[in-house]
Amino acid sequence: MTPTLFTKHEAMLDQALTAIETRGYWSPFAEMPSPKVYGETANADGEAAFKRHLGKTFELDQPSTGETVGKERSPFGVTLGIKYPKADPDALIRAAAQAQPSWRAAGPQAWIGVSLEILSRLNRASFEIGYSVMHTTGQAFMMAFQAGGPHAQDRALEAAVYAWDQLRRIPSEAHWEKPQGKNPPLAMHKRFTVVPRGTGLVLGCCTFPTWNGYPGLFADLATGNAVIVKPHPGAILPLAITVRIAREVLREAGFDPNVVTLLATDPDDGALVQQLAVRPEIKLIDFTGSTQNGTWLERHAHQAQVFTEKAGVNQIVIDSVDDMKAAARNIAFSLALYSGQMCTAPQNIYVPRDGIRTADGQLSFEDVARTLAGSVEKLTSDAARAVELTGAIQNEGVVERIAQARGLGEVLLDSQKLTHPAFPEARVHTPLLLKLDAHADREKFTKEWFGPIAFVIATDSTAQSLELAESIAQEHGALTLSVYSTDDAVIESAHEAAIRGGVALSINLTGGVFVNQSAAFSDFHGTGANPAANAALADAAFVANRFRVVQSRVHVAPKTASAEAGQTA
Amino acid sequence: MTPTLFTKHEAMLDQALTAIETRGYWSPFAEMPSPKVYGETANADGEAAFKRHLGKTFELDQPSTGETVGKERSPFGVTLGIKYPKADPDALIRAAAQAQPSWRAAGPQAWIGVSLEILSRLNRASFEIGYSVMHTTGQAFMMAFQAGGPHAQDRALEAAVYAWDQLRRIPSEAHWEKPQGKNPPLAMHKRFTVVPRGTGLVLGCCTFPTWNGYPGLFADLATGNAVIVKPHPGAILPLAITVRIAREVLREAGFDPNVVTLLATDPDDGALVQQLAVRPEIKLIDFTGSTQNGTWLERHAHQAQVFTEKAGVNQIVIDSVDDMKAAARNIAFSLALYSGQMCTAPQNIYVPRDGIRTADGQLSFEDVARTLAGSVEKLTSDAARAVELTGAIQNEGVVERIAQARGLGEVLLDSQKLTHPAFPEARVHTPLLLKLDAHADREKFTKEWFGPIAFVIATDSTAQSLELAESIAQEHGALTLSVYSTDDAVIESAHEAAIRGGVALSINLTGGVFVNQSAAFSDFHGTGANPAANAALADAAFVANRFRVVQSRVHVAPKTASAEAGQTA
Repeated sequence: MTPTLFTKHEAMLDQALTAIETRGYWSPFAEMPSPKVYGETANADGEAAFKRHLGKTFELDQPSTGETVGKERSPFGVTLGIKYPKADPDALIRAAAQAQPSWRAAGPQAWIGVSLEILSRLNRASFEIGYSVMHTTGQAFMMAFQAGGPHAQDRALEAAVYAWDQLRRIPSEAHWEKPQGKNPPLAMHKRFTVVPRGTGLVLGCCTFPTWNGYPGLFADLATGNAVIVKPHPGAILPLAITVRIAREVLREAGFDPNVVTLLATDPDDGALVQQLAVRPEIKLIDFTGSTQNGTWLERHAHQAQVFTEKAGVNQIVIDSVDDMKAAARNIAFSLALYSGQMCTAPQNIYVPRDGIRTADGQLSFEDVARTLAGSVEKLTSDAARAVELTGAIQNEGVVERIAQARGLGEVLLDSQKLTHPAFPEARVHTPLLLKLDAHADREKFTKEWFGPIAFVIATDSTAQSLELAESIAQEHGALTLSVYSTDDAVIESAHEAAIRGGVALSINLTGGVFVNQSAAFSDFHGTGANPAANAALADAAFVANRFRVVQSRVHVAPKTASAEAGQTA
Repeated sequence: MTPTLFTKHEAMLDQALTAIETRGYWSPFAEMPSPKVYGETANADGEAAFKRHLGKTFELDQPSTGETVGKERSPFGVTLGIKYPKADPDALIRAAAQAQPSWRAAGPQAWIGVSLEILSRLNRASFEIGYSVMHTTGQAFMMAFQAGGPHAQDRALEAAVYAWDQLRRIPSEAHWEKPQGKNPPLAMHKRFTVVPRGTGLVLGCCTFPTWNGYPGLFADLATGNAVIVKPHPGAILPLAITVRIAREVLREAGFDPNVVTLLATDPDDGALVQQLAVRPEIKLIDFTGSTQNGTWLERHAHQAQVFTEKAGVNQIVIDSVDDMKAAARNIAFSLALYSGQMCTAPQNIYVPRDGIRTADGQLSFEDVARTLAGSVEKLTSDAARAVELTGAIQNEGVVERIAQARGLGEVLLDSQKLTHPAFPEARVHTPLLLKLDAHADREKFTKEWFGPIAFVIATDSTAQSLELAESIAQEHGALTLSVYSTDDAVIESAHEAAIRGGVALSINLTGGVFVNQSAAFSDFHGTGANPAANAALADAAFVANRFRVVQSRVHVAPKTASAEAGQTA
């Protein structure tokens, strides 16, 4: 069956290979929740499938203690009440080790074929997963569908195709024949076997469980590893559905489904994760979460390859603009989108205290700050419209952070609690915008304030803005940097600052692209070159060390000598 | 000048790209020290060049304290008396950081062009380097020439071509255009800049300073990093010559020569290395040496990508043979070659205590042991011939280890001190061969006894031999495994054991290939899959994380919209 799965998806794989080499626009998974693409009843079916999970124990036929866990709470206030089979980490490690040999022996085409079949089934489950992402992360439905469904599937395919791009370069065998002058050549037949590392551990986050979890999961699977998926206790369901689908495909393809297992947990699972992460059987760890936890893994899980995405301080440098309102609309959207709970959302907005040039003349710092605040206010003043953009706040910690941040400086725009028209209990808060000073407030803005919190920071000059952007990215990490300037020299300086800060740069975004967005197959997400992430999604470095090659060699008859012997005979 | 260097070497690069994909025999650097290839006077010129270094201070115009260091001693007893400019590590780090920006900005083709030009000049210096390797490592001249010259250059080119193979896949720019239904597409121009990690540190060893040092050095250079080369205090000269040549090429190509610097040290430089290795500026470390030091680096230098080759226990499983004498000749050569001081030299030879089948009937364990001992004795009984194979012992520690090992078990063949006909002070010792028992002596043979020390170990069965080979490779590391069997099922079991042990397997070597040898572009040296090495020489994983990619994006006019507009106009 598995060679068929590879063949079945080979055309998509070939297109994906072209995409990662040209890095133009490409996606095999439709991002619009369109009935034409997904089917007339797909939305209703997906919502019904999601609702069937509520108040039940999620069925998963994997090793379990017989107990259940699960305390997810919907940021929209819907009662979830979903329980998951509790698993003993030891039992999952043993099950993965048992499943590994036949999975390993199946080889690269089987790994890729199975991975791509899982992805195509995940795509069909995009609505069910979308509603599950919505009600665990707090994302509004459209974003939950897109980021949790097709965009996450894109990133998964990207990881798998990078893996294939490396795997396909390793010949399974070779004939080696070394001339020996007048003597017959030395000849050997060599076999090269791709050997996966062993068992991987994927540690999910509570804001983008699938988008951030899939790359590691699929990079591991595509290189022949078994995987234990441990979701964040606050966002289990989307990964539980994913694991169930993965296991179905594995079973149908004739493999032990324990190649992929779920480790669902209750909140405060830190000690459990730390014990598991240093187990000798765990050879790969993919983590998205706090700097504290990510750094702990990097420093303690020596037995594993550790890939982390941690906190960062994303920044915008405003030097000069043609149209401040267009810039402000774009920035406001980025601040409001999922209430600033994206790892790519901007936080620090640097504006020279003497103001900026625009096509309509000079604007003072206060004018710029006011325009930004006004744009955010406009986007978020109508609750019914706003909630489709902001979604809900994932957890109370973020709400508390808004309250803490309020005292940091002069409030340019206060955060409002909104009432969601459809979900009255939803935890909805609009962005808080504060004014800070580059000199006096440095300690305040050199850390991440995760959530709908942003600072407009008065600098001495654009040069200082760029210097801050570079040094903060270097020291504290950043996934995105954005610059607005009508001056080519400033753009070039920003480009150099981005290179030294190791951060992706967006230039003069005033239209339909936002700094928080990154497109699979084209935009690298993270660089691995500053503390926000030690890897990029996705590139060769993300996959090349998830497997090794073991060779054997044996003497054979030389081909050139044989040819001569043949002529003589 | 640098585009010219790339073009100059592009044909070789293309051949190398083919070689790493097909993994057949290929080498651009002639391994025989032939006057026809290297020039009629090359040998004499190289020896003279080596001799001119003796008793002098090595000239290197890099940052120095003004003092000198250097206490190398020739294992052949020749007085070296070479001094090197002493460098302050801080000053080298600063110099590398200063040299970095223009080197970084030059881009991949320049890095590859310069790297390949350095290599072609190193090739011309193969005799000078060969004599330098000989008189620091103790290798006999032929091996010092081959392993220290052309074979090391092969491994360097291999690392560089793997780097190029990854670099060339990253487009420097892309046009991204996303359809928006009836609206005009979103279009962006993207730039992708390859950004080296920063400064690399290459920590050399005293037995193969160039062969083991070049892969990291050239992987770093080919990906745009600056490099500080710190040779082992016992084998500085070969890397000092290398650094001088690298600096010449860099200077001629218009770069700051401090892209490559030398940190020569006196013995007992451990504290200095540890301080340097954890400096935030050091982003890459390539190490060859003891397990203790390698593990320390892996666990402490968190700021760097750390590539290590450490100790291991190489093993031979003898199950059955057609011709025991042919097998024994091959094994004896492997034991005697450079007095077992190769990281690939076999140590544990497993033989069933009930003996083995051969084409000439059953051989008892004692027969096999005697045949092996006899073959080693024959190879090493004539001092004049023997020394060309064994070379000399690198340091007194190895001689002391022979004395310690002598008491471990029944002596099958004692180690002899030989007098070198040309170098009466040379430290020459032939292999010690002991008999051990798989059960009683397990603690003795599960560690590396570096040097001319090998054990013939009586096992219950070939199954036990393979089980030992696998588990020892897994737990204690191994670079090579060799099996002798006339039974295909045993060969297949050995293949599976090799995969689980993560070790390269050689099968039935009885001819002109020896288990200690690995051929660049075809054999992976090390797997990265057991404790002997966390990387292989060379593969994608060895290079892909030595650089990162930083992108920028800016809106541009859509191409499809322009085309329509063009048609309308």
